[in-house]
Amino acid sequence: METLTVELGSRSYPIYIGAGLLHDGDLIKRHVAGSQVAVITNETVAPLYLDALRQALAGLAVDVHVLPDGEQHKNLDRYGRIMDFLIEHRHNRTTTLVALGGGVVGDMCGFAAATFQRGVDFIQIPTTLLAQVDSSVGGKTAVNHASGKNLIGAFYQPRCVLADTAVLASLGAREYCAGLAEVLKYGVIADEGFFGWVARESSALLARDPGALTHAVRRSCEIKADVVAEDEREVGLRAILNFGHTFGHAIESLTHYTRLLHGEAVAMGMVMAADLSMRMGWLSAAQAQQIKVAVASLDLPVCPPELGVDDMLDAMGMDKKVVDGTLRLVLPRDIGSVMVTSDFAPSRLRETLAAGGALCDG
Amino acid sequence: METLTVELGSRSYPIYIGAGLLHDGDLIKRHVAGSQVAVITNETVAPLYLDALRQALAGLAVDVHVLPDGEQHKNLDRYGRIMDFLIEHRHNRTTTLVALGGGVVGDMCGFAAATFQRGVDFIQIPTTLLAQVDSSVGGKTAVNHASGKNLIGAFYQPRCVLADTAVLASLGAREYCAGLAEVLKYGVIADEGFFGWVARESSALLARDPGALTHAVRRSCEIKADVVAEDEREVGLRAILNFGHTFGHAIESLTHYTRLLHGEAVAMGMVMAADLSMRMGWLSAAQAQQIKVAVASLDLPVCPPELGVDDMLDAMGMDKKVVDGTLRLVLPRDIGSVMVTSDFAPSRLRETLAAGGALCDG
Repeated sequence: METLTVELGSRSYPIYIGAGLLHDGDLIKRHVAGSQVAVITNETVAPLYLDALRQALAGLAVDVHVLPDGEQHKNLDRYGRIMDFLIEHRHNRTTTLVALGGGVVGDMCGFAAATFQRGVDFIQIPTTLLAQVDSSVGGKTAVNHASGKNLIGAFYQPRCVLADTAVLASLGAREYCAGLAEVLKYGVIADEGFFGWVARESSALLARDPGALTHAVRRSCEIKADVVAEDEREVGLRAILNFGHTFGHAIESLTHYTRLLHGEAVAMGMVMAADLSMRMGWLSAAQAQQIKVAVASLDLPVCPPELGVDDMLDAMGMDKKVVDGTLRLVLPRDIGSVMVTSDFAPSRLRETLAAGGALCDG
Repeated sequence: METLTVELGSRSYPIYIGAGLLHDGDLIKRHVAGSQVAVITNETVAPLYLDALRQALAGLAVDVHVLPDGEQHKNLDRYGRIMDFLIEHRHNRTTTLVALGGGVVGDMCGFAAATFQRGVDFIQIPTTLLAQVDSSVGGKTAVNHASGKNLIGAFYQPRCVLADTAVLASLGAREYCAGLAEVLKYGVIADEGFFGWVARESSALLARDPGALTHAVRRSCEIKADVVAEDEREVGLRAILNFGHTFGHAIESLTHYTRLLHGEAVAMGMVMAADLSMRMGWLSAAQAQQIKVAVASLDLPVCPPELGVDDMLDAMGMDKKVVDGTLRLVLPRDIGSVMVTSDFAPSRLRETLAAGGALCDG
């Protein structure tokens, strides 16, 4: 087991990474302060891992709430039902919520923990690669609004994160690859060496080689933890974690969160951001190509679906990264370095949005 | 104008108290960081004070959302509509929400600010006495659940609080007196001298004498600010602010938040807490009587409505003050001093709950 710490003063917490952690009752219980636990999970994950978690939590009063699977259920309505569940089962301020699942479960459970009785403890047990390297770390919790992703939420840190790499074996190929998009992202934004490693080891990663996987999760969490420690509430630096996400969120929104996985949309978004950066002369054509090739090497899509340029602009305009009317994007200026800027030419952005086909052929 | 500060490190903020502050545009705008403002108010307050606030905010882009009046609208459904409103009007992360109204408006607007885009700035402009001396200070935000008050919410501090004492002139007598219940509470929990002053000056307070009013608001806010500075998230000391509230919330819940104002229920709750303390031998009969007399001198009810003992116990059991199955109550051990305890005899609590009539006659 490897242990990292997200350094946030009195809200610091450990991330445990290793195979089989789900079965380590002592480790989990060390982070449960009271006697009540509410496990929030979903219908896909529950049959696979709920029994193991129940055994690990033996001795505590455990209630379980099972959500339907899918991003379309990450909304205020389902959030309200989690509140109903907690109140019906008389959970109090010393309860601990446990998120057992992917990003949707983690985000909703985290938002429930942030707002039930004005905040109770929670533990993240991410069961997808995406959640292990991204959403479970850093305290962003949220639900979606019909008009956009994560428009309702809170910054609220968990007591700990348990990333059990053994559970990744059960992921479908598409979902697994979607997680690799975020892994690659960390290389582009902060570590050229790690980017190179991911690109070189793409076969080992696709084969889910345990050693490669542990390194990928560990280094991703390290980079994210460093960024979050410096800027918990995203007033500055943390925005770099959104590389590929403004494009990606717009694509997800326009496809109603059903056609694409989040990581797939982010993969397309990273390629589009690189394309815009290249058009602005901030990134060489070779580097933009390297990013695209790396995305493709991880079995991820590089071509966005056919979406109107104006629709995309509109969807990007509603994104949270808009500061007082100005659209700010995270764009690479090198591999391993990005900038947050609104100084791109709108005409170049339109070219990038119109160039879906060109990107795919290029 | 008097200025107090709630000392919370980087989240410290001023409370301004004085007549006519609502018209002080410079003062308000000093706490607006961006160019967007969303005013959340209600149908009763808007006709009285919205124009003045709009003028004070001249030069900013102001959108207004008007809630229906009443505690029964403080729920997740109305909260969702505030989110819809903010998103429809394209408010972004630099917007400032302004709560213009009483406790319901302040609590809902605060919860909206805490959770819109994971947190935006907000300003409290409380227009009731209750809100000026209690709910607008300290960062408790919430909505109710069908099963209980404030079960969903967050700790989230405003940028500033503007308590314009001139607006209290328009309050109905019943609502004004309900606010005096919280003023009296501060005396019982923390300042025997202030308790004595409130009891002596009850006529001046009921006549809304400007001098008496300013002193009452100022001293109440001072006591609250000191408690909040020491224990923002209610892990200890802050619980004393709930004196009278566990009983009061149960009464409100069983009467479906319609028959009684919050301050009226708290007034009854303080008398019941004093009664229980007396039955336990922790407070003299004379002191319990002093508290009851002071409540009555402020034209507040001392007799709870006829509610079954078991229903009350059940309603109190669901209260947030329950820690891991044990009901904790805030009970006076002197005038000016309370304790948070679960060491009362359940049989004495039943006697207190059964003694509504006795309390009224005693």
